Amino acid sequence: MSQKPQRLVYLNGEFVPEIEANISIYDSALMFGDMVFEMTRSFNKKQFMLRQHLERLYRGVRQLRIPLKISIEEMEQLVYQTMEANEPAFAPRDEHRMMIDVSRGPLGMYRMVFGGKVEPTVVIADFPVKWTVASLAHFYDDGIHAITPSQRAIPSQLLEQKIKNRSRLHFLFANLQVSLADDPNAMALLLDPDGLIAEATGANFFIVVDGKLLTPEGRNILRGTRRAYILDLAHRLGLEAQEKNIDLYDAIHADEAFFTSTAFSMLPCTKINGLTIGGGKMGPIFKRLIAAWSEEVGVDIIAQTKAFAAEADAALSSGASTYRFSEEEE
Amino acid sequence: MSQKPQRLVYLNGEFVPEIEANISIYDSALMFGDMVFEMTRSFNKKQFMLRQHLERLYRGVRQLRIPLKISIEEMEQLVYQTMEANEPAFAPRDEHRMMIDVSRGPLGMYRMVFGGKVEPTVVIADFPVKWTVASLAHFYDDGIHAITPSQRAIPSQLLEQKIKNRSRLHFLFANLQVSLADDPNAMALLLDPDGLIAEATGANFFIVVDGKLLTPEGRNILRGTRRAYILDLAHRLGLEAQEKNIDLYDAIHADEAFFTSTAFSMLPCTKINGLTIGGGKMGPIFKRLIAAWSEEVGVDIIAQTKAFAAEADAALSSGASTYRFSEEEE
Amino acid sequence: MSQKPQRLVYLNGEFVPEIEANISIYDSALMFGDMVFEMTRSFNKKQFMLRQHLERLYRGVRQLRIPLKISIEEMEQLVYQTMEANEPAFAPRDEHRMMIDVSRGPLGMYRMVFGGKVEPTVVIADFPVKWTVASLAHFYDDGIHAITPSQRAIPSQLLEQKIKNRSRLHFLFANLQVSLADDPNAMALLLDPDGLIAEATGANFFIVVDGKLLTPEGRNILRGTRRAYILDLAHRLGLEAQEKNIDLYDAIHADEAFFTSTAFSMLPCTKINGLTIGGGKMGPIFKRLIAAWSEEVGVDIIAQTKAFAAEADAALSSGASTYRFSEEEE
Amino acid sequence: MSQKPQRLVYLNGEFVPEIEANISIYDSALMFGDMVFEMTRSFNKKQFMLRQHLERLYRGVRQLRIPLKISIEEMEQLVYQTMEANEPAFAPRDEHRMMIDVSRGPLGMYRMVFGGKVEPTVVIADFPVKWTVASLAHFYDDGIHAITPSQRAIPSQLLEQKIKNRSRLHFLFANLQVSLADDPNAMALLLDPDGLIAEATGANFFIVVDGKLLTPEGRNILRGTRRAYILDLAHRLGLEAQEKNIDLYDAIHADEAFFTSTAFSMLPCTKINGLTIGGGKMGPIFKRLIAAWSEEVGVDIIAQTKAFAAEADAALSSGASTYRFSEEEE
Amino acid sequence: MSQKPQRLVYLNGEFVPEIEANISIYDSALMFGDMVFEMTRSFNKKQFMLRQHLERLYRGVRQLRIPLKISIEEMEQLVYQTMEANEPAFAPRDEHRMMIDVSRGPLGMYRMVFGGKVEPTVVIADFPVKWTVASLAHFYDDGIHAITPSQRAIPSQLLEQKIKNRSRLHFLFANLQVSLADDPNAMALLLDPDGLIAEATGANFFIVVDGKLLTPEGRNILRGTRRAYILDLAHRLGLEAQEKNIDLYDAIHADEAFFTSTAFSMLPCTKINGLTIGGGKMGPIFKRLIAAWSEEVGVDIIAQTKAFAAEADAALSSGASTYRFSEEEE
Amino acid sequence: MSQKPQRLVYLNGEFVPEIEANISIYDSALMFGDMVFEMTRSFNKKQFMLRQHLERLYRGVRQLRIPLKISIEEMEQLVYQTMEANEPAFAPRDEHRMMIDVSRGPLGMYRMVFGGKVEPTVVIADFPVKWTVASLAHFYDDGIHAITPSQRAIPSQLLEQKIKNRSRLHFLFANLQVSLADDPNAMALLLDPDGLIAEATGANFFIVVDGKLLTPEGRNILRGTRRAYILDLAHRLGLEAQEKNIDLYDAIHADEAFFTSTAFSMLPCTKINGLTIGGGKMGPIFKRLIAAWSEEVGVDIIAQTKAFAAEADAALSSGASTYRFSEEEE
Repeated sequence: MSQKPQRLVYLNGEFVPEIEANISIYDSALMFGDMVFEMTRSFNKKQFMLRQHLERLYRGVRQLRIPLKISIEEMEQLVYQTMEANEPAFAPRDEHRMMIDVSRGPLGMYRMVFGGKVEPTVVIADFPVKWTVASLAHFYDDGIHAITPSQRAIPSQLLEQKIKNRSRLHFLFANLQVSLADDPNAMALLLDPDGLIAEATGANFFIVVDGKLLTPEGRNILRGTRRAYILDLAHRLGLEAQEKNIDLYDAIHADEAFFTSTAFSMLPCTKINGLTIGGGKMGPIFKRLIAAWSEEVGVDIIAQTKAFAAEADAALSSGASTYRFSEEEE
Repeated sequence: MSQKPQRLVYLNGEFVPEIEANISIYDSALMFGDMVFEMTRSFNKKQFMLRQHLERLYRGVRQLRIPLKISIEEMEQLVYQTMEANEPAFAPRDEHRMMIDVSRGPLGMYRMVFGGKVEPTVVIADFPVKWTVASLAHFYDDGIHAITPSQRAIPSQLLEQKIKNRSRLHFLFANLQVSLADDPNAMALLLDPDGLIAEATGANFFIVVDGKLLTPEGRNILRGTRRAYILDLAHRLGLEAQEKNIDLYDAIHADEAFFTSTAFSMLPCTKINGLTIGGGKMGPIFKRLIAAWSEEVGVDIIAQTKAFAAEADAALSSGASTYRFSEEEE
Repeated sequence: MSQKPQRLVYLNGEFVPEIEANISIYDSALMFGDMVFEMTRSFNKKQFMLRQHLERLYRGVRQLRIPLKISIEEMEQLVYQTMEANEPAFAPRDEHRMMIDVSRGPLGMYRMVFGGKVEPTVVIADFPVKWTVASLAHFYDDGIHAITPSQRAIPSQLLEQKIKNRSRLHFLFANLQVSLADDPNAMALLLDPDGLIAEATGANFFIVVDGKLLTPEGRNILRGTRRAYILDLAHRLGLEAQEKNIDLYDAIHADEAFFTSTAFSMLPCTKINGLTIGGGKMGPIFKRLIAAWSEEVGVDIIAQTKAFAAEADAALSSGASTYRFSEEEE
Repeated sequence: MSQKPQRLVYLNGEFVPEIEANISIYDSALMFGDMVFEMTRSFNKKQFMLRQHLERLYRGVRQLRIPLKISIEEMEQLVYQTMEANEPAFAPRDEHRMMIDVSRGPLGMYRMVFGGKVEPTVVIADFPVKWTVASLAHFYDDGIHAITPSQRAIPSQLLEQKIKNRSRLHFLFANLQVSLADDPNAMALLLDPDGLIAEATGANFFIVVDGKLLTPEGRNILRGTRRAYILDLAHRLGLEAQEKNIDLYDAIHADEAFFTSTAFSMLPCTKINGLTIGGGKMGPIFKRLIAAWSEEVGVDIIAQTKAFAAEADAALSSGASTYRFSEEEE
Repeated sequence: MSQKPQRLVYLNGEFVPEIEANISIYDSALMFGDMVFEMTRSFNKKQFMLRQHLERLYRGVRQLRIPLKISIEEMEQLVYQTMEANEPAFAPRDEHRMMIDVSRGPLGMYRMVFGGKVEPTVVIADFPVKWTVASLAHFYDDGIHAITPSQRAIPSQLLEQKIKNRSRLHFLFANLQVSLADDPNAMALLLDPDGLIAEATGANFFIVVDGKLLTPEGRNILRGTRRAYILDLAHRLGLEAQEKNIDLYDAIHADEAFFTSTAFSMLPCTKINGLTIGGGKMGPIFKRLIAAWSEEVGVDIIAQTKAFAAEADAALSSGASTYRFSEEEE
Repeated sequence: MSQKPQRLVYLNGEFVPEIEANISIYDSALMFGDMVFEMTRSFNKKQFMLRQHLERLYRGVRQLRIPLKISIEEMEQLVYQTMEANEPAFAPRDEHRMMIDVSRGPLGMYRMVFGGKVEPTVVIADFPVKWTVASLAHFYDDGIHAITPSQRAIPSQLLEQKIKNRSRLHFLFANLQVSLADDPNAMALLLDPDGLIAEATGANFFIVVDGKLLTPEGRNILRGTRRAYILDLAHRLGLEAQEKNIDLYDAIHADEAFFTSTAFSMLPCTKINGLTIGGGKMGPIFKRLIAAWSEEVGVDIIAQTKAFAAEADAALSSGASTYRFSEEEE
C-alpha cells in the first residue's frame, strides 16, 4: 500500500521534511528578527510575479548586508525545484504557496556550536494556498471590517517597512487591539504617525473615489507586488490609478475600498470603524479588476477561493475566527 | 576513553543537544519576531537577579498574550535544571549564561504540520559567559567609543521597547551604520526621535556629573536589570543616582560615562562621537561601583573578564572586531 | 393639591425653568465651542471644592478674554442661590450637581438680533448627582475596562486642555471608537501624541505601583479638582504620590489603577486593553483612599452611589450601557 | 399700520422667531461642540452650491453617527422653505445666508428633562449676507493682511478638520493672538504643525505663481465649497490650478494671494507677516476669476459687497474692527 | 591737548582699535555661523561669573572641535588684560561688557589668502554695559510684554542651543514677527516644537507659582549663567526653585514672571500675549531676588540701570524702540 | 619688474584688497548668522545663471527685511565690475567664482562705534573656481560616498532653508559626524526629521530610477540654481524629471545618484552608507546630462575640473582630504 508523499522544504542546500524545517535558536533571524522573506503563490500551478518577489527579497538582502552567495537566478531555480519536489504531495487543484526566507545565519559569537563557521540561512517552503485563503472566502460576501487600532505603523525611517522582514511585533499588537472588537470580520488597518492610512498587517489598501483608484504612497508600507499589479492593471483597463496620501475621512467617504495581497489577490473592505463603505458589498470597480485579473491568470479567483473553503477540513475552519491578516502576506 | 559532555538545551519539555535546538520555520517567533526572552548570567555559578529577569519575561508574555502554561516558579526551576544539566560540559571557572526564549509557537494556520495543535515554544539554553565577554575585556582599558548613528531608537508607543523581544532589526541597522566608522571600539548609542539618548543596542547608558549618576528615563528603552542594580547600588553607596532626560550635550560634557549589561556588568565609555570623556579611561565612580559589585557577587568582574579573554581560543578572538552590542543583552 | 416644584436654571440674571434654559444659535458657545464650564457636586448637600472649580473657571475666562462682569465671589453666591432655589425640587437624599457655563455670548455680527448689544452668557444649572452616577455604581464591582482608542488626546499647544471648554468633539470620536468593542464596561483612555497616557474623556487616571500613586503630568490634560484632591489626600495619609509620565506598559503592569472625577469621585480600572489589572477588583490603596474621602465628606461614597443606582427608574437605567465618560466631568 | 415681518428659524420641525431660536444647555452641541453645520449664501436670491454644502454636512453627520432622520433631499427642501418663509423679512437686494446646524441633540443622561426622549437638533436660520460681508468690502481695496499666529491648525488625525464642526476654540485663540497686531486689516493664517499653510479661521487660501494657482492640500483643512469652485473655474478658464503643500516662503514670494469663503467669495491678501504681496492690491488672476464668477452668478460680487457696506447702519460698522474670519465660513 | 582714549579689541594676539576689529569674509564664523561666544559684564568693574562663562565657551569650542590653542586660564587672563587696556576709555561709573568670540578661523580652502595657514579667530571686545541696558531701564517700571511668535525654538537635536553660537537667524525671525505687534515693550518668548516655553531671544524665563520659582528645563535653551545664579540664589534665600516643563497656561496664570540675562540681570515680565501677569509690576519674589543680588555684587542693579538710562545720549535713546532681546545675551 | 596684480573685493562701495575684506565684529552677520549670500561661477569667463542667483538673494533680503538700497540691477552691475576688476589677477583659463554677501550691517546698539549710523553690509568677492573644485576632480572617477549622519536637516518652519543664509552650524555638525567614517570620499547627505532625504551640506541630490530623474521636494532644502537647471535640461533632453519625496530605500536601490552644485556642476554619488550605487561609477544619464551641460556652456566640465586639479599647487591639494561640501555652495 503506497504512502502519501510528504511536503519537503529546501533548507540550506537540502530538502528536508517540513516537520524538520527548523532554524537554530542562535540564528540572527531569531535573535533580531533579522530575516527577509517572500511568500508567493501560483495560479494553475504557475508562479505569479515570482521575479518581482525575488527582486524585492534581494533588495532587502543587500540593504541588510546579508552575505548571501546564491544569485537571484539560482534562487529562482531553487524555487521551481522546490515546487516540483512538492507537487506529488499536492492535490491536482492545489496551488503552491512558496515561503522564501533568508537570514544572516547564526550569530558569529555562537559559531563554535556550528563548527566555527556560520553561513546565511536559506529556506524555501511550499504549502497549499488553501491553508491561507480557505478561511477568507466568506469575505467576498461579507467584506472585511477595517478597524484602525491605537497602534500606529512604524515609519520607515525607524524600521524600513519596504524591506519585507520579520521584525513585525507591532503587527501583532495591532491585531490584539482589533481582537477586542469581537467582530470575526474585523481586521486592523494601520495609520502611520502622521495619521495617514498605511496598510493592513499583511495587505495593501485601495479606495475608489469617482471611478479613480487611490492607494497610499509607498513610504511607510510594504510595497506589495499585488499593489503594483493593480496599479498596472487599472491603467491597462483605462482606469485612473495613483498613489496618494489618504486619511480616514477619504476612506470613510469613498465609493469602494479593498485590500490586496499575494495570497488572496483582492478582498472587499465594506466597513471602516463601523461605517459601511460601498453599500457593504463588492463594488463595480472591484469586480471589474478581479475579473480581469482572473482572466489574465486563467483562474476564477473568487470561485477558486470558495472551492478551497468548501473542501477545508474541520481542523482548519475551526480556527478561522482567530485569523488575522498578520498571517497573510502582501 | 570518556567523551566530553555536550551542552543541552531545554526545548519544549525536553533536553536536546545544542546543535539540535531549532525552531520551526512556521513559529511565530520567526514569522513576526514574536518572542520574548532573557539572557542571564551567573557569578561563581550562581544566577544573579534571575527572578527579576523572569518577572520581566512574564510581563512580556502577558502583554503579548502568549498562552504560556508554565508558571514563573516552574520556569525558575527549569532554569536551574538546565544549568545543572550543563554543568558537566562547563569548565570549573566558566559562568553560565542562560538564554530563555518564549514564543507563541507555530502560527495557527500551520497547525496541520504539527498534528493539528500548536503550543508556545519554550527554550532554555546555557552557554559560557566567556563567549560573550572575552572579546570585551580590552574595553576596561580602551573604553567604548560610542557613536550616535542616524538610526533612531523606536519609541515605545510604536514598538514596546520595555518588552525584551526579537523585533530588533533596527539595532542591526544602527550597528551597520556604526561599522562605517572603521573603529573596532565603536558601538552604537541610539538617540530617540526626540534627540534624547536612549540606549546602546543591548546595553544601558549612564553618565556621571558632579559625582551624581544619571541614566535615561525608562521610556523608550529596555529597563535593564543591571541598570536597576546600579541605581540601587549607588544609593546604598551614598551616591545620588536618578533617571533623567539626557541629551548629547550632557553626555559629551559629563565627567564619566559607562554602559551596563547583564553579560559584562559595566564597561567604561571613553568617547562619544570622537570626543573623549573622562580622560579616556575608567573614572573614579565607575571603579567604585564595579568594586562594590564585585564584592557583592564574590567575583572580581574585571579580572574574570580578562581571564576569559586570555583563554579565548583563536577562532573566537578572530571575530572580535565584528562584535557589536547587539549580540549583547541588558 | 400641591404641585411638584420644578428645577430652575440661572440664565443671565434670571431663574428659568430647566426646559427653557436655552442658548441662542448665534452664541459663540455654539458657533465655536467657545464656552468654559464647571460641573460640581455636593456631599450631604454641601458643595465640595467649589472654590477650586470656580478658580479654574476664571482662569479659562481670563485666557479666552471673555468680558465677564461677574466676580468670582458673586459667582460663588449665585451658585449657592441656585442650589437653594432648587432644593425644593430635590429629594432629601439627592445631591446637587451644578453646571456652570460661561460663554462670550452671541457673536458681535448678530447683535442686531439682540437689540444691538451682546453680553457674555452665564448659566448655572442644578440637577441630581444620581443622574450621572446611578449607572456607574456597578463599576465598584465590575471595574472599568479601559481601552486606548486610535484617537489621541489633543496636546495643549494645539487646544489648551487645561481650560475646561466645550470644543471636545475628539472625546466623542474616542468614545465612538471604543463603542466598537461592544463591552458595556469599556471606557476610552486617551494617549497623547507622544504615546503617554493622558486622561479618560472626562476623568483623570491614576496607577499604584509598589504602594506609590502616579498620575500623568498635568500637561495635555484637564487637571481635575479630584486629581488634586487625591494627590493631597494621599500625602495626608502618608502615601507617596506624584505626577509622572506614564505609558501603557507602566499602566498594564501596575498593581492598581483607577479613575477620578467630580461626579463619581473614584472608580476602579480593572482592565486595560483586555488585560486585567489588580486582580480585577478594587485594590487596597483604592479602598483606603475612598474610605478616607468618604470620612472627610461624611458620606459613604460607594454606598451612596449604589443607593442612587437602586432607586434609578427604568428610563434611566435602560440607557446605562451607552453611558460614556464624555458625559462625565473631572 | 403694518408691522415689519420678522425673520424665522426652522428649529426641529417648527418655524420660530429668530430671537427664540435657542438650544438646550444639555444639547450635545453645547456640551461637546458636537454639531455639524453649513453656512450658504444666495446670489440673486438663488442658493449657490447648496447641494455641495449639504453633501459635506451629511458626511459629517455620518462620521459622527448622528441618528438624523431627515434625508438630504428633505433637508434641501427645508432650506428652500426657510428661505421662502424669510423672504418677506428681507430687502429686495438682500441675499440669503442660511445657517444649517445638526447636532446629536440633548445628551441621553438628561432625557428626563425632555420627557424621556432625545432627538437630533436641526436648525435652519436665514439672515442677510450683508451682515457678514458689509464690513469686508474695504478689503477689495486694502487687501487682507495675513499674520501667522503661534497657534497651529489642529491636524485632522487629532480633530477632523474636514468635518465642518463647532469644536473650533483654537480659531478663537488664533484670532486673539492676531488681534495683538493692532492692525484692523490683520487676519490669522494658520500653519499646521508641519509648518505648512493650512487655512484662515474660516477661509481657504490660494497663491498665484507664474500664472498658476496653488492651494494647500486638503489634509488638515476644511475643504471649502468655494475652494472647489475656484479650482474648477480656473480649469475652465484655461488656468493651471492644483493642490500642493505650500509654506510661508512660497506664499511670501508669490505673485498674488487671496482667500475664498462662502460669504465673501474672494478677497485679496496683500500682506503676509508684514511683507507686501502682489504690489498690495488685487492681482490680474484674482480679477479674472472674480469677474468670471460674477458673470456665472449674475452678480457683480465686488459691487454688491460695496453696496452692502454703503448701506450698513452705524451699529454694524462700529464693530468692524473686531471682525475676524472666525465669524466667517468657507 | 589730550585726546580721549579709544576702546581696544583683542584680535588674534593684538589689541586693535574697535573700528578695526574686523573678521575676514572667509572666516568660518561668517560662512557658517560657526563661532562660539560669551558676553559678560562687571559689577563695580569686577567681572561676574567670568569663569562660568568661559567654561561654557570651552564646552562649545570642544564640541565644535575648534583647534583653539589658548587655554581657559590664558583666556581668563586675556579678558582681564583687555578690560585693563580699556579702562582708560571708560567713565568711572561705567561697567565692562566683554564680548569673547572664538571661531575656527578662515576656511581651509581660502588659506592661500592668508599665506597658506589658517588659525582660529579669537576676539575680546569691551564696551560699556550701558549701551545694552540703558534702553531697558524703563522695563523695571513698565515690565516686558512677552509675545509668543509663530517661530519656534530650534530643538537641540537639530542645532545645539546649549552651545552659545552665532547661527541664530531664527531669533531674528522671532523678533520680526513680534515687531508686528507695534508694542515697544513687546519681546519674543519662544515656544519649542512641543509647545513648551523655551527662552527669549537672549534671555531666560522664570515664573513664580505659590512662592516657588520655576524655569524651563535646560533642554532646548541656552542655559544662562544668570539662570544658574538665580536657582542658586533662590536656594540660599530659602526659596524653592527648580527646572520644569512650563507651558503657556502655567505662565499666563503664574503669580510672577521675569527674565534673566547677563546684561540686565533681571527684568519683570508683566504681560504674556496681552494678559497681565502679577498685577503688571515687579512682584515680591522678584524684588527679593534682585535686592539680594544687588547686595551680593555691591551694586543696586535697578538704580544703576536707571542711572545709565538717564545719561544715555539722544542718539542711543532714539533707537530704543527697535531694541530686541536678540541684541542681548544670557 | 612688474608685480602680480592682487584680487580685489567690493566692500560697501569700495574695492579693497582681499586680505582687507573684513567685517566688523558687531555686524549682524557675525552676531546672528544674519547674512544672505550667493556663490556663482563663470564658464569661459561668463557668469552662469547670475540673475537667478540674485533673485534668490533678493528674496532672502526681502524676507529678512534687510534695508538694502542697492537694486538687483545695480547689484548685477557690481558683480560684473568686480569680475572685471579682478580679471588681471586671474590666469587665462581661470574661472570666476563670485561670493555676494548682504547683511543688515552692524547692530543698532553699536552704532556709536560707526559714527552713529549703520548700513547694510555688501560684499562681492571673486576668486578662482579652481580653489573649490580642484580637490573634487577625482570624484568623477571615485564617486562621492554619501553617508547619512545622525544630524538632521533643519526644517524650514524652524529656520528657512530656502533662504541661502549663514546660520548653518548644523552643516558643520553633519560634517564632523561624517568625518568619523575616515573615508576621504565620504560626504554628508542629510535626512530631514521625517526621514526624507534633504540635501548635502552645500549640494542638491538626484537619483535616477528607470531612466527618470527624481530630486527631493523643495521644502526643507536650498533650491539650488543647478537643481533647477538640471530639471530644465532633463526636460529639454526628453527625460522625465520631477521633485518627489525620496527616502533612503529609494536612493539605495536607485540606478544612479548624483549631486549638483554651482561650483562643481555635477558629481556622481557612488555609495550611500557603504552600499554601491550604479556600479560605483558615473551612470549613462549622468554622462548625458553633463555632456549636454558642457555643450551649452562651451566648457568640458569634467576636463576643466581635472585640469584645475592637475595644476593645483601642493598647499591646496594637501587639504583635499578635509574638504567637505560645507565649503561648497548650491
